[in-house]
Amino acid sequence: MDYKWLEEQREEVGLALARQGIRLVVPVGDKAGKGAAAADDSSLSSFIDHTLLKPTASQSEIRQLCHEALDYEFASVCVNPVHVPAAASLLDGSNVKVCTVIGFPLGATTTLSKVLEARDAVAGGAEEIDMVVNIGALIEGDYARVYSDIKGVRDAVPGQLLKVILETGYLSKEQIVRGCILAKMAGADFVKTSTGFGAGGATVEDVALMREVVGADCGVKASGGIRDVETALAMIKAGANRLGASSGVAIMEGLRGESDY
Amino acid sequence: MDYKWLEEQREEVGLALARQGIRLVVPVGDKAGKGAAAADDSSLSSFIDHTLLKPTASQSEIRQLCHEALDYEFASVCVNPVHVPAAASLLDGSNVKVCTVIGFPLGATTTLSKVLEARDAVAGGAEEIDMVVNIGALIEGDYARVYSDIKGVRDAVPGQLLKVILETGYLSKEQIVRGCILAKMAGADFVKTSTGFGAGGATVEDVALMREVVGADCGVKASGGIRDVETALAMIKAGANRLGASSGVAIMEGLRGESDY
Repeated sequence: MDYKWLEEQREEVGLALARQGIRLVVPVGDKAGKGAAAADDSSLSSFIDHTLLKPTASQSEIRQLCHEALDYEFASVCVNPVHVPAAASLLDGSNVKVCTVIGFPLGATTTLSKVLEARDAVAGGAEEIDMVVNIGALIEGDYARVYSDIKGVRDAVPGQLLKVILETGYLSKEQIVRGCILAKMAGADFVKTSTGFGAGGATVEDVALMREVVGADCGVKASGGIRDVETALAMIKAGANRLGASSGVAIMEGLRGESDY
Repeated sequence: MDYKWLEEQREEVGLALARQGIRLVVPVGDKAGKGAAAADDSSLSSFIDHTLLKPTASQSEIRQLCHEALDYEFASVCVNPVHVPAAASLLDGSNVKVCTVIGFPLGATTTLSKVLEARDAVAGGAEEIDMVVNIGALIEGDYARVYSDIKGVRDAVPGQLLKVILETGYLSKEQIVRGCILAKMAGADFVKTSTGFGAGGATVEDVALMREVVGADCGVKASGGIRDVETALAMIKAGANRLGASSGVAIMEGLRGESDY
């Protein structure tokens, strides 16, 4: 890892924000931190957000998702906002969290809309919030806008786990680094690679870079294209401590060697 | 057109809503109505919503979109909510409307979120609102939920043109018909085929069916995959009186025979 280059990215973001009147100490990642320990048979399921975000999802599919999450002891179910109350009801009293997505998948709704959408989701029972950044603003270098967008949602749902989706498939390495810095500055609990609806998904290289930037005290969620146990373990080895996958059951069955297909 | 089958769809929707306490006269389309007259060189541009919805869109691309819309006298520009204020400012005083998208593209945000998002868009200067239906609920036959979702947005933005995106690529013919009936019942000004982000786009067959169901007193917007003048004119002939296209300039240049590529 080129630490000088990383430092330059941090300085660039800090200067850009300062020019717009936002003065903050830009956090420096713990260079030694790799965050996640290696997963074994017993713990891999606890890394997985069991995900169903297709727009045609039925209530019976949501029920099945929740039952699978309980059976396999996944970290959460990740569903669209319209399904949050049903999932919260089905998972009530369990250790499986309800995760939902905000400004999804384009990230191009206003900050106010993201804030209200997040509050509505929490009112419905969501405990984890995966928001999409303002991708266009990040690419254009409008860092004040990216920061205040994330910060707005952060402040609106202070008690929930907040993951910031960068949609890395659209971004250069510099943009990924700067997105991570901005997310961490704004108080995000996790940075996350992809929506699964845009260009590309999680790569080992991007996950390792994101872990390097945010350090050990911020999470990294790899998502998009994780469909088997080999990919899942590679993402964790690269630094991910949460995985978004719609193939959680297949991943776990692959780990157990019980799958015939 | 099988009118008996259409009537059966109307009765089915009416009965389903009545069972949930929603009693309304289900509107019957004007069977003679084809809505749109044939477009000629001078009028085709007035059918087009000049569209840029990719999540990476920059402010300079939005500016270019607006300038093109002014030059070609398109009906509107269709942009993501985050770009509404800029577009409204650029188009102020012109005849080109600002159109935006709500619950886009999955349609799986809550009714409250759609309502607040639509109000925020109108506050920012949006004059036309293209909302995505609750696709999962439409497929499952939860018509009361589909109806109240559309009606909620309709009531929230009474002064704006409301288009309801069905995302026809995911739907059966019956579901398209029922979606059209529900949209018209809820007071939509237009039904619209596609987001451009889901499965499939507008087809001549679907547009003709939608026009047949909603009659002459409701609009039909064809969108998704309309990239040349031949397709554009075919959609209008089938009954569309608005076209969503990111290739509006190419369509108009094709019409003028000025394009070399």
